[in-house]
Amino acid sequence: MPSRADLESLDRADPLARFRDLFALPEGVIYLDGNSLGAQPRQTAARLAEVVEREWGRDLITSWNRNGWIDYPARLGGKVARLIGADADEVLVCDTTSINLFKALTAALDQRPDRRVILADRANFPSDLYIAEGLARRRPDATVRLVEETELAGAIDDSVAVVTLTQVNYKTGYLHDMAALTRAAHEAGALVVWDLAHSAGALPIDLNGAGADYAVGCGYKYLNGGPCAPAFLYVARRHQAKIDPPLPGWLGHAEPFAFDTDYRPAEGMRRNLCSMPSILASAALEVGLDLMLDAGIYALRTKSLALTETFIRVVERRCPGLFDLATPRDPARRGSQVSLRHPEGYAIVQALIARGVIGDFRAPDILRFGFAPLYLRHTDAFDAAEALAAVMEREEWREDRFRQRALVT
Amino acid sequence: MPSRADLESLDRADPLARFRDLFALPEGVIYLDGNSLGAQPRQTAARLAEVVEREWGRDLITSWNRNGWIDYPARLGGKVARLIGADADEVLVCDTTSINLFKALTAALDQRPDRRVILADRANFPSDLYIAEGLARRRPDATVRLVEETELAGAIDDSVAVVTLTQVNYKTGYLHDMAALTRAAHEAGALVVWDLAHSAGALPIDLNGAGADYAVGCGYKYLNGGPCAPAFLYVARRHQAKIDPPLPGWLGHAEPFAFDTDYRPAEGMRRNLCSMPSILASAALEVGLDLMLDAGIYALRTKSLALTETFIRVVERRCPGLFDLATPRDPARRGSQVSLRHPEGYAIVQALIARGVIGDFRAPDILRFGFAPLYLRHTDAFDAAEALAAVMEREEWREDRFRQRALVT
Repeated sequence: MPSRADLESLDRADPLARFRDLFALPEGVIYLDGNSLGAQPRQTAARLAEVVEREWGRDLITSWNRNGWIDYPARLGGKVARLIGADADEVLVCDTTSINLFKALTAALDQRPDRRVILADRANFPSDLYIAEGLARRRPDATVRLVEETELAGAIDDSVAVVTLTQVNYKTGYLHDMAALTRAAHEAGALVVWDLAHSAGALPIDLNGAGADYAVGCGYKYLNGGPCAPAFLYVARRHQAKIDPPLPGWLGHAEPFAFDTDYRPAEGMRRNLCSMPSILASAALEVGLDLMLDAGIYALRTKSLALTETFIRVVERRCPGLFDLATPRDPARRGSQVSLRHPEGYAIVQALIARGVIGDFRAPDILRFGFAPLYLRHTDAFDAAEALAAVMEREEWREDRFRQRALVT
Repeated sequence: MPSRADLESLDRADPLARFRDLFALPEGVIYLDGNSLGAQPRQTAARLAEVVEREWGRDLITSWNRNGWIDYPARLGGKVARLIGADADEVLVCDTTSINLFKALTAALDQRPDRRVILADRANFPSDLYIAEGLARRRPDATVRLVEETELAGAIDDSVAVVTLTQVNYKTGYLHDMAALTRAAHEAGALVVWDLAHSAGALPIDLNGAGADYAVGCGYKYLNGGPCAPAFLYVARRHQAKIDPPLPGWLGHAEPFAFDTDYRPAEGMRRNLCSMPSILASAALEVGLDLMLDAGIYALRTKSLALTETFIRVVERRCPGLFDLATPRDPARRGSQVSLRHPEGYAIVQALIARGVIGDFRAPDILRFGFAPLYLRHTDAFDAAEALAAVMEREEWREDRFRQRALVT
């Protein structure tokens, strides 16, 4: 197990160290929930004030052209593209993860009229399954088949139109092999929709390298775009012209300002735009994206793995036998989080929060710790593990106040 | 025609006069585009700074409970409800106008399995038609029938499942008779979806009094919620339990934090929530809504009619025979805008903008002037009409610089 001095020296040598000061993090808090809600870039408030007072307040309606509001979906899409191995004209920032998933699954089903199965793993984020089920319930040519995560690759047969899965499992942090699963799907004649909610900004993604078809993701986790930031949608260029948008939007029309009665889809990616995202929310997301691009995704991944490795090692040494590690020990299969199983997980997380270490709990027994490498220090990983050891040693989690559940956990 | 002195005296007696100072409006500008993008409440920047720095930055993930983030859709819905004649538990603020329209039309079609027609008028806002057409293209049990605005009531026969229409026409400002059309639809066994984009916040709406079924609307026009603010959805209580959401969302689940694999809709209105709106955008919208509720919708309507009446009278007197009035002369049929037809409409609008009077143009020949009564003065209506007279008298619109079209008009 590394000593705290080892980690202090890693912090001193950290090429990403300067980014921490660009985020507002409360004194005395170790924030390990950036996989749920990314931290707040200090610059965001000033940028929002500018958008509100100068762009909205002074330039008013002329901002659509003058301040580039109309370009937000494509401009931010181009920035997201650089993080996920896509070309700029393959990504739009718009709508929400669920809505974008609905579009992607619809497009994939349309492309495979002779197949009816949407294949998903049971461990996928539930709302992704809800969208898939909702879609299948209303399409006579579709049904959802759920399998265990480990059985996914073997379950892709010639009835499968599309496989939908989240690259990093939200509970366990398990990282799917995007290239291998995409290949397996294509070999079986199926398409794939990747949900990058827990991987975009956390690790290098190479959608085009993997030959991916569709992808969606959100802006408020590792991208630090603010609570419920706009989402993104990726469509591989080769699929774009085939898409008949199920949610045809005004600005996805070939000529929005002709105000035609009939819908004619725009060329290329823009047809997938249903609604313009909030301009305030888009401006905030751009601040987060710019920081991420400045840091560089390979440097972030290197640090991320060091952080999760430190946390795992210190917990294993200081809390031997107390937790099951739900996250893969193999770094190649690990996202940017560490999840531990314990039947008293809820209370333990609350006791940790009281000590200033903010993680979260996912039923029935998962303690979840996200390590956002952009603003966490190596010593934070060490100190968080030590705090967990103290909570366990002193049995602090037994206190009543830690056992009462709040609505949002 | 009233004199400017008459209008100055109206301004002095205006019970809503104090609201103007609560908005940031550029010096020397008369802003007649609040029907496209509402003006910026001065308080918005401070409120956003608070949300960013205190709620997001300091309270982080605990804000979901501590700062009521989780309640935004229902809380803001309750505020919108007071403006549109609905009960608090019949409205949610979420998603976008197009997405909410998709939900409402789907629900209406589901309730009328023996009927296949979505009836709309050709003059409806195009993107509403796109959503209807997109839906019908994918449902074997649905088709869109378009008729002229004036033929709408007569076209509701027993093939019609649902009528979809915008209460105030975006081009002409024509105000439909909500009670009469809803009654006509119900008598023919059809349901109605009202789009309130150009009426919410502009005039009193009584959805429940009219026996309405569904309604949608946006937050960024008369509600002053900021560019691309979240939208709202109304579902009459009697329909709520029947709805099988076509876009089932995480927080519309009966127990979101059980993370069930299967979707079970929440009781009541909440099942209609697909995605949480941006918290930043929601906070901004709340500022606008609170101002609107403080002013009172009846006082706003009284002033709105006075403003549009003044503008029409001065234009009629000062520009005799130059424009066709596209907006009804009858105040009972008029929204909060005045639209004039002229073949050189685009250039005239640009010339007016150069004089600081901001209206907009809608192809092929509509000059559109929105009168947001919350922040406009009676003298603004007078001065805007005088500016128009000057542009016409001096033929300023003939200048080349006013004839080049920008992307967003």
